[in-house]
Amino acid sequence: MESRRSVFFVSDGTGITVEILGNSLLTQFEGTLFRRITLPFIHNRKALQHAIDQINRAVKEEQQKPIVFLSIINDEMNRELCEKTHALTLDFFQAFISPLEQELGVKSTHAAGRSHSVNYDYFRRMEAINFAQMHDDGAATRDLSHAEVILIGVSRCGKTPTSLYLALQFGIRAANFPLTPDDFADHKLPDSLQSLRHKLFGLTIDPKRLSQIRQERRADSHYASLENCRQEIRNAETLMEQEKIPILDTTAKSIEEIATTIIHEAKLSRHLY
Amino acid sequence: MESRRSVFFVSDGTGITVEILGNSLLTQFEGTLFRRITLPFIHNRKALQHAIDQINRAVKEEQQKPIVFLSIINDEMNRELCEKTHALTLDFFQAFISPLEQELGVKSTHAAGRSHSVNYDYFRRMEAINFAQMHDDGAATRDLSHAEVILIGVSRCGKTPTSLYLALQFGIRAANFPLTPDDFADHKLPDSLQSLRHKLFGLTIDPKRLSQIRQERRADSHYASLENCRQEIRNAETLMEQEKIPILDTTAKSIEEIATTIIHEAKLSRHLY
Repeated sequence: MESRRSVFFVSDGTGITVEILGNSLLTQFEGTLFRRITLPFIHNRKALQHAIDQINRAVKEEQQKPIVFLSIINDEMNRELCEKTHALTLDFFQAFISPLEQELGVKSTHAAGRSHSVNYDYFRRMEAINFAQMHDDGAATRDLSHAEVILIGVSRCGKTPTSLYLALQFGIRAANFPLTPDDFADHKLPDSLQSLRHKLFGLTIDPKRLSQIRQERRADSHYASLENCRQEIRNAETLMEQEKIPILDTTAKSIEEIATTIIHEAKLSRHLY
Repeated sequence: MESRRSVFFVSDGTGITVEILGNSLLTQFEGTLFRRITLPFIHNRKALQHAIDQINRAVKEEQQKPIVFLSIINDEMNRELCEKTHALTLDFFQAFISPLEQELGVKSTHAAGRSHSVNYDYFRRMEAINFAQMHDDGAATRDLSHAEVILIGVSRCGKTPTSLYLALQFGIRAANFPLTPDDFADHKLPDSLQSLRHKLFGLTIDPKRLSQIRQERRADSHYASLENCRQEIRNAETLMEQEKIPILDTTAKSIEEIATTIIHEAKLSRHLY
């Protein structure tokens, strides 16, 4: 049996940045099995010693070098971890900070975390999340004109997670509105969307995939049947085309890809970075 | 007036990884103003040429080198962008992939994106998001035992965005439940939480901050008054201490920091990377 290689994400902050970076690199090595361990908030000697011990234990147990994605801004702690562990250490901060300092002509502040923007980020996000929640699944039509984008599509095509992701990751106010058999019978958009056509963005999905998703929710129902899914999607796409609304197929896409494509095509502004 | 330095995030995927990485580096240069432009889905020659043109236009207009955070896996396109633009290019893929290949003893697949995990990720996330939505603000008590963690605290202390972030980023099923004046009058936890004490995690917040957040929602109300916020928080903290529930102060923390601290202290497992 192949042994798993330990991968550590070590950070003086949340570790989310090194996790994302490291995992994006690890996806390039599909055949290899990894055991992932995140060690966040390594910002004092006690936490550092604990991290060093954990990494060295893996060296011993696995008889191979663990991989350490590192982001500790304090130079001394950083060096200590590198010296006292027998691992492959990849430190994105060290790799890029000095060319940046040189080009910008200033020294970096060497400050851990990014608490300076907590306040602004928090309010912006909170507002966007509240908005997404209040305008989920067509729940409220009041203030719909304050939306930066309104996602439409049949039930379970990916509208809710996309709206929430747009709010959380980018601070964008995204509403979503279901297209239902009533709308198809009328051959027109719901009344509350008529004047907001320029903000609409359509999501669609492969009928088989939709049926599979709906089965998880309501097994063996008319709602989840392949025939009904086919019919609903055909009607929704026809309506969107007729109304000249952009359509995105979410079938083989991650939520990140769906959200980014919408930002890109609808030319929305990211409010958070 | 200081001119803004253009920063490009160029990727053959969503660009979210390079955005996160790049911004975490840029926070180290607080005095400098940046103009951020994300160029996602650069995976053909036409898109590449468009990116090169945009970067070179910035060179001309700003009379200084733009910074380019780059993640294009195709070597040839990568080289072309570097050669044809006069920018500081920081390429995290190129920097780390070769030491990884060497240590792992295999070649990377050089495949863009990470669509191989779309399906698993999607279902895991969908399920966690549905769960968070259904169990937001104590909405449903059915299935509460399926939660991996249940956040409790007074209204507007950060429970909802944290639950959603845990679901979206890590696939963790997080419910949240408000503590209300009724609970304080009874001096005990709501009945539906009694048997789930081991899953509870308390959030608290500075009363001034809470009052400020509540003012945004319901200005000049008793609900938002500093006096009422002080009282509610004192009662909530007393109840949590009495019930031996861990308490986290969210006041000066980002949602990422709150979520990571909860994962760390409650020893939850990340389901997604």
